[in-house]
Amino acid sequence: MQIQFAERFTGITGSEIRKIFALLSDPEMISLAGGNPSPKSFPSKKMAELSAEIIEHEGEFALQYGNTPGISPLIELIKQENQDILRPEDDVLILSGSSQGIDFAARTLLDPGDAILVESPTFLGALQTFMIAQADIHEVAMCADGMDLTDLEDKLKKYSPKFVYTIPTFQNPSGLTTSAEKRKAIYELCAKYHALILEDDPYCELRYEGEALPSIKSFDRLGIVIKLMSYSKTISPGLRVGAVLADREIVHEFNLCKQGADVHTSNLSQYLVYEYIRRGYLAPHIQEIRAMYKQQRDVMLEAVENCFPKEVCVNRPMGGLFVWCELPGQMDAKELFAKCVERKVAFVPGGPFYARDPHKNTLRLNFSMPSKENIQKGIAIIGEVIKENL
Amino acid sequence: MQIQFAERFTGITGSEIRKIFALLSDPEMISLAGGNPSPKSFPSKKMAELSAEIIEHEGEFALQYGNTPGISPLIELIKQENQDILRPEDDVLILSGSSQGIDFAARTLLDPGDAILVESPTFLGALQTFMIAQADIHEVAMCADGMDLTDLEDKLKKYSPKFVYTIPTFQNPSGLTTSAEKRKAIYELCAKYHALILEDDPYCELRYEGEALPSIKSFDRLGIVIKLMSYSKTISPGLRVGAVLADREIVHEFNLCKQGADVHTSNLSQYLVYEYIRRGYLAPHIQEIRAMYKQQRDVMLEAVENCFPKEVCVNRPMGGLFVWCELPGQMDAKELFAKCVERKVAFVPGGPFYARDPHKNTLRLNFSMPSKENIQKGIAIIGEVIKENL
Repeated sequence: MQIQFAERFTGITGSEIRKIFALLSDPEMISLAGGNPSPKSFPSKKMAELSAEIIEHEGEFALQYGNTPGISPLIELIKQENQDILRPEDDVLILSGSSQGIDFAARTLLDPGDAILVESPTFLGALQTFMIAQADIHEVAMCADGMDLTDLEDKLKKYSPKFVYTIPTFQNPSGLTTSAEKRKAIYELCAKYHALILEDDPYCELRYEGEALPSIKSFDRLGIVIKLMSYSKTISPGLRVGAVLADREIVHEFNLCKQGADVHTSNLSQYLVYEYIRRGYLAPHIQEIRAMYKQQRDVMLEAVENCFPKEVCVNRPMGGLFVWCELPGQMDAKELFAKCVERKVAFVPGGPFYARDPHKNTLRLNFSMPSKENIQKGIAIIGEVIKENL
Repeated sequence: MQIQFAERFTGITGSEIRKIFALLSDPEMISLAGGNPSPKSFPSKKMAELSAEIIEHEGEFALQYGNTPGISPLIELIKQENQDILRPEDDVLILSGSSQGIDFAARTLLDPGDAILVESPTFLGALQTFMIAQADIHEVAMCADGMDLTDLEDKLKKYSPKFVYTIPTFQNPSGLTTSAEKRKAIYELCAKYHALILEDDPYCELRYEGEALPSIKSFDRLGIVIKLMSYSKTISPGLRVGAVLADREIVHEFNLCKQGADVHTSNLSQYLVYEYIRRGYLAPHIQEIRAMYKQQRDVMLEAVENCFPKEVCVNRPMGGLFVWCELPGQMDAKELFAKCVERKVAFVPGGPFYARDPHKNTLRLNFSMPSKENIQKGIAIIGEVIKENL
């Protein structure tokens, strides 16, 4: 039988990155294409102990149905740790990964055709979610310190977007970080034009230099900032635990959405994250993974410096998992990708990270997954291929 | 700021049952309102051992991002166990609980205003999901052996529904089971009128008497049956693991939906379910919980027999978690509920389980959660209150 799917899925073909991953089954391939945390960053030993303890002593709760908003101790802990940025009218809901919060924002806030603004480039998974929501997606140009405020204001005026989606810290894919001044300015502009802000901040703890910056949520007087946080980059992505911090009216709608979406996030995952933090394991663990990733980043930046021709413009990220490159104007990163894959190196061409106007000469390099040796080898090969095609 | 939420959430106020639960914080309350498996049914000891072993030896995978469709060993195991009902063109995708499959069916198949058919009464959570999907929901009358086929055919003709949602075994809330003949007849009618079937079968393993019946999926020549299965009632609901078995084209769309919904189901949860089954723990465990729940059911049926007046029509379920009652025609179960709560007994009034035409004289009683003593006490009190209000 010919099945007629919902209109919202027309033209949705799935993540481009996932298609690239399908090409990477070759064990000889050096992949700088991933976006995963290093498995070396997982606190497996402590988690193994905690899980046995939790199920044995709290199995009655960990294995039972739970409340949709999440387990109370984890919610309370998040409230306490974020008390400096939460308004009295704000609330917290646990998510099955922060991606779920992007989906809930789309579903609770967007009618088909509603406008939103995103950074250019931005997170591919979010773009797919917004496309399924049939949003009218507009891009805001990026500067080295975050969105171009003139472009942002123009588009806030012109499109009256429901919300502005931003990844302010060590953005995926660009590695860019929005400055403190710009965070405040973005907030004030959105407040002025009655747009919500979807602040997606999964990488903020992965800082290798510089000072921590205030969350956009910290400026929120009006309850317009929906802040998404994640434990995927600091504890474990496989457990699928994140959270949303927002005005209680918004959290209420997210809660309705979650009742049908998955009833609640795995209780075992929630208890594991809670106990891991409660016992004080997280802070020293973050120090360790920062030191590890900093080395990886430095190896990549040094290799890029040594191997890429001067015509390639490379972003030097202060944290996160990615280095972003712009090739000379006419060079197509997709063609470069095909040539590099022949030589057993993969990365992600940047085009799919753009909502409207793909910069085909961009590419994303990941430094968390490959070994230092493979970073050096991979970058050297990409450098050679770029030079051959200049 | 006044926030304008998406139209699909207009009038959605959340599960009525969850509101009742909020009233039940009183520790003296005897609750026959729940729908949870008994915590005594959880294999905590084995799960504690397995979790430690999995994280220690497979932490690299269990704690890492996974593929959206699920971990391969669990998918393969499900395929193998269901080889007699799967078509060669079918595929399997792991869900974060089978509820997620209801949500995905609604999102991938329904445009606003699309018609669907549901049983009358039916699962409240599904109704909320279909309302958020802005479906045009129509009810099919139920007989003791499943849907009224004349009514089903009339409504298939009249409304051309996208799908028919059915819980064929030990239905929530009615406890009714669709007979083997009727399962086949429902399949043939849907095939004739080009409607899909969403077969939601979370309770099928909780059988206390009689023979297992064929899944509607087993009749599926055309790839029109979307079968949802769950480990929530047999292993643990807190882990949030279920699966969908359907034509690969449908599974492909579910996969696109899941990429944005939660990327993938908790890997730890998936590995726990997989290892629990692979080691042969599940079959004897199901025998144990069947024996336990059968006793609970029998205590409830006996108490109802002894305490309820003859005017109350009581369904005798062959499995599942619920006994369903119809009070004499003019009696309102909501009013009865208020009076029973005063006397510290709670149940769920049946009205909210109906999509269109609430039978206000119905109520649902749960026998998995309360102790045998509390079942007897609770039923005695409800019986008294009914008699006082006859």
